[in-house]
Amino acid sequence: MTLRVALAQCNPTVGDLSGNLDLLRRNLVQTRSHDVHLVVFPEMVLSGYPPEDLLLKKHFLLECRRLLDAFAADCKDMTALVGFPEFDGDACYNSLAVCRRGRIDAVYRKCLLPNYGVFDERRYFHSGSTPLAIIEKDLSLVLTICEDIWDIETLAGSLASLPKKNVIINIAASPFHAGKLRQRQDVISAAARRFGCAVVYCNLIGCQDELVFDGRSLVFDASGTLALQGRPFREDLVVFDMSPGDSGLTIHPILVSSMKLPGDPVAEVYEALILGIRDYVRKNGFQKVLIGLSGGIDSALTAALAVDALGPRNVVSLTMPTRYNSPETIGDAKLTAENLGIDIHTVPIGDLLSHFSRALYQVPGWDEKGLAYENLQARIRGTILMSLSNQLGCLVLTTGNKSETAVGYSTLYGDTAGGFAVIKDVPKTLVYELSHYINRLHGREVIPRSVIDRIPSAELRENQKDSDSLPEYDLLDRILKGYVEQIKSGQQLIDEGFPPEVVNKVIRLIDRSEYKRRQCPPGIKITPRAFGKDRRMPITNKYSF
Amino acid sequence: MTLRVALAQCNPTVGDLSGNLDLLRRNLVQTRSHDVHLVVFPEMVLSGYPPEDLLLKKHFLLECRRLLDAFAADCKDMTALVGFPEFDGDACYNSLAVCRRGRIDAVYRKCLLPNYGVFDERRYFHSGSTPLAIIEKDLSLVLTICEDIWDIETLAGSLASLPKKNVIINIAASPFHAGKLRQRQDVISAAARRFGCAVVYCNLIGCQDELVFDGRSLVFDASGTLALQGRPFREDLVVFDMSPGDSGLTIHPILVSSMKLPGDPVAEVYEALILGIRDYVRKNGFQKVLIGLSGGIDSALTAALAVDALGPRNVVSLTMPTRYNSPETIGDAKLTAENLGIDIHTVPIGDLLSHFSRALYQVPGWDEKGLAYENLQARIRGTILMSLSNQLGCLVLTTGNKSETAVGYSTLYGDTAGGFAVIKDVPKTLVYELSHYINRLHGREVIPRSVIDRIPSAELRENQKDSDSLPEYDLLDRILKGYVEQIKSGQQLIDEGFPPEVVNKVIRLIDRSEYKRRQCPPGIKITPRAFGKDRRMPITNKYSF
Repeated sequence: MTLRVALAQCNPTVGDLSGNLDLLRRNLVQTRSHDVHLVVFPEMVLSGYPPEDLLLKKHFLLECRRLLDAFAADCKDMTALVGFPEFDGDACYNSLAVCRRGRIDAVYRKCLLPNYGVFDERRYFHSGSTPLAIIEKDLSLVLTICEDIWDIETLAGSLASLPKKNVIINIAASPFHAGKLRQRQDVISAAARRFGCAVVYCNLIGCQDELVFDGRSLVFDASGTLALQGRPFREDLVVFDMSPGDSGLTIHPILVSSMKLPGDPVAEVYEALILGIRDYVRKNGFQKVLIGLSGGIDSALTAALAVDALGPRNVVSLTMPTRYNSPETIGDAKLTAENLGIDIHTVPIGDLLSHFSRALYQVPGWDEKGLAYENLQARIRGTILMSLSNQLGCLVLTTGNKSETAVGYSTLYGDTAGGFAVIKDVPKTLVYELSHYINRLHGREVIPRSVIDRIPSAELRENQKDSDSLPEYDLLDRILKGYVEQIKSGQQLIDEGFPPEVVNKVIRLIDRSEYKRRQCPPGIKITPRAFGKDRRMPITNKYSF
Repeated sequence: MTLRVALAQCNPTVGDLSGNLDLLRRNLVQTRSHDVHLVVFPEMVLSGYPPEDLLLKKHFLLECRRLLDAFAADCKDMTALVGFPEFDGDACYNSLAVCRRGRIDAVYRKCLLPNYGVFDERRYFHSGSTPLAIIEKDLSLVLTICEDIWDIETLAGSLASLPKKNVIINIAASPFHAGKLRQRQDVISAAARRFGCAVVYCNLIGCQDELVFDGRSLVFDASGTLALQGRPFREDLVVFDMSPGDSGLTIHPILVSSMKLPGDPVAEVYEALILGIRDYVRKNGFQKVLIGLSGGIDSALTAALAVDALGPRNVVSLTMPTRYNSPETIGDAKLTAENLGIDIHTVPIGDLLSHFSRALYQVPGWDEKGLAYENLQARIRGTILMSLSNQLGCLVLTTGNKSETAVGYSTLYGDTAGGFAVIKDVPKTLVYELSHYINRLHGREVIPRSVIDRIPSAELRENQKDSDSLPEYDLLDRILKGYVEQIKSGQQLIDEGFPPEVVNKVIRLIDRSEYKRRQCPPGIKITPRAFGKDRRMPITNKYSF
């Protein structure tokens, strides 16, 4: 007997219940044409993930149930496994509905609830405690949800009571960071080997605020060998047969995309950023984005990513020079726009800066020598971008990278002003790698060579360079990785050989910039520990080490 | 035998470990002079609460332990109960150290970890599972931490194994909202009656980012009657004797402040806001604050609160009129400053507005008829305030109330620009009540009558009134309370008799303003459900009802 399975790796929108129901139905129709017996949808596909405090609304949970019942009524000729928030009148569970025979035939409740990093599942859900296996075509399919499979000993304890296990099914909403796929493959392969059965893993795709879900659903055979993989960062329908063979189940592909990412490790970050921009813009009802092009690499990269995500007609750029901008950077802003095929408007702000400063002289203490005057330039630019965003209905993309964001090398309401911070979690060194990658990908100089080669500068005063205020980015990024991502202490970093004065300075800058980060737009998480809901530091805090 | 107890209701700063150790020591010295046997400190007093992701730093946890050991060495002649984050080399606990005989003699670990509302304790802590009672002067003192006492059935189960219970001690870091005291008293009184023993409750005071802790430590006798209360919103040392009497323990005050809040229910909100401003400013290293005075009631109230918190010399105000501001409001801004005894600077922004608009005409699509032009005025003001903040080192207090914040009746980077949003959780109707309260408290018109009486307007165009865009505040605030605080659905509100078209409009405005709120400064929680870490909605969200 052969079981034909489809993994419907799809992209729901949080809260769009009727839209998500349509998505389920469209997938059901499509699988039907492939004679599928069992279709597997990702975790929480009905509500989108994470729905956060929507889960505190009983009427939201009841509406989820109503739509799930409607969907289950469609599942007469096949079985669908659907992730949804379940409400039993009292508590809420992260659940998987077995829809068959025209109804919700059984429900599995997630047992292990992650409550670390970007996860807050214990805020919302109660834990399930009962394992569930269903029989399809004489195969016993054990149902699990995401985290359940990440603690193999707990899972082993939980599954001990099940008499027969042919396949473990895991539905997931696993957020991306660079390198995560490897971890997932290791975990799933280990589970396959430990339990001696195939593992079928269906992951969400799409962007929800700070999180990108990368799809790449997986099928491992009972020996722990990868048999199939869903498309990266795209919706996909993976169809395959499972039939008993000499050594366990044989997995036979029916409909599997051959799409692979280029070998370059930067490729997956590029894909995450593209998907992140596209989904945030689309799901929030925007068409076009607006970007301030300075002539520097961060804004050039952001614009290039936006063009690849949305097309050049949906990207508008603006350059807002003062006398502190060199002719080269002004030229480079225009060259970047030209290379990208996007509109560029020029609004010189020198006069505005003079008028503003004159107005500010009415308050004793103002002068043009300090940081405030430098930052005023950034704030005038932020105001112009936001005014045009307001007027034209474009979303402003901000262009700050993770290195700047970390040390607060930015002006609040200035260069941080906007709706979505595309490269907020991309360290400066990776900004360069991404720029080279994009140029290679397009086979031409999309991001001008001169932009890539120029010494980084905010150009807010004469002859300013980033290195006047900050260590070289290569050093800075390694300290950031240790301090922010790996939660090392300053002492540990010093013991590892980083210069003490640089470590101390960088840590001080990071810790006292928390108030700025708190008011920045959301951006796409691509590292193991991003600022935002991933790293939650108090603003008022006297501990810095 | 008499046990003399002190409740050291004190105000630590998150992360300021050596400062907090000094605070413990100062209190120890003070209690010694009163011949105290047992001094009780609040939950997590050593680290401050909540320390958030500082708890993920092992070196932070180890440093806490080192300082606690140092403090315990001082506790030779008396016993101190100290809340601290405990690290056992593997997991972290929210713990209470029994410091006596010059060492940490025992440790109790919190059993019930709140993970709702503003709490994220399961992100950081493992649960304890063992009850602990200590003997002092022949009395058996049962140790509990905050949430432990809020679920009386669970507590009863946990305490069943303890042979003798004379007193339950509860150390707490219980965040304030209006009306919370009553809830606490009910819970503690019920515990006293249920277990037939006195309950001693020591609460933190102080402000940490969005949270205010209000102190008001409590002592209930075994009959469930309130015997003593610590000062509201201030540090305090409450000293009392407990001695066996005919009907259980007798509680005899030794050092108890008679300070009480006025009967007015608005009084506690006023106190919370004053403490919130004072602590946020002080703990973040500021002296002075800067406020834009529009002549309207929100900024007048914010300035009056700031003056009461910091003194008039630490409050600087700025008025930034355009031709859309009536002579009356300009006059009222000045009158407010005069009444408050604070400096006021005038920076007219009409010319800047013209220059800006002229610059913006360089981009096709700009015009002066729309919302963007109105908002530009707010953004120019935001830029001026932030530039002066930058230059003068003052913290900008923003002046938006909860009603505006809810429906997004504000300009991002305009009137939302600043460091601390004092009345962000205060609905407009309560803004009026607070203004009257302040005038009564001072026995004079601190906030001018004309400011209180004027019809609310943003004055961003001719003859604008808030009621052009929003329902009357009385109606709006009742809808907000139902939708935001009580998590009712639109349908429920309509069923309760609210006009459907108003309900639908208000809910739509609330839901689509999430992106703005996400970039607003932190502010003081005073309601049961504040925007911020209390109410966590996705930005990308198509569910609105």
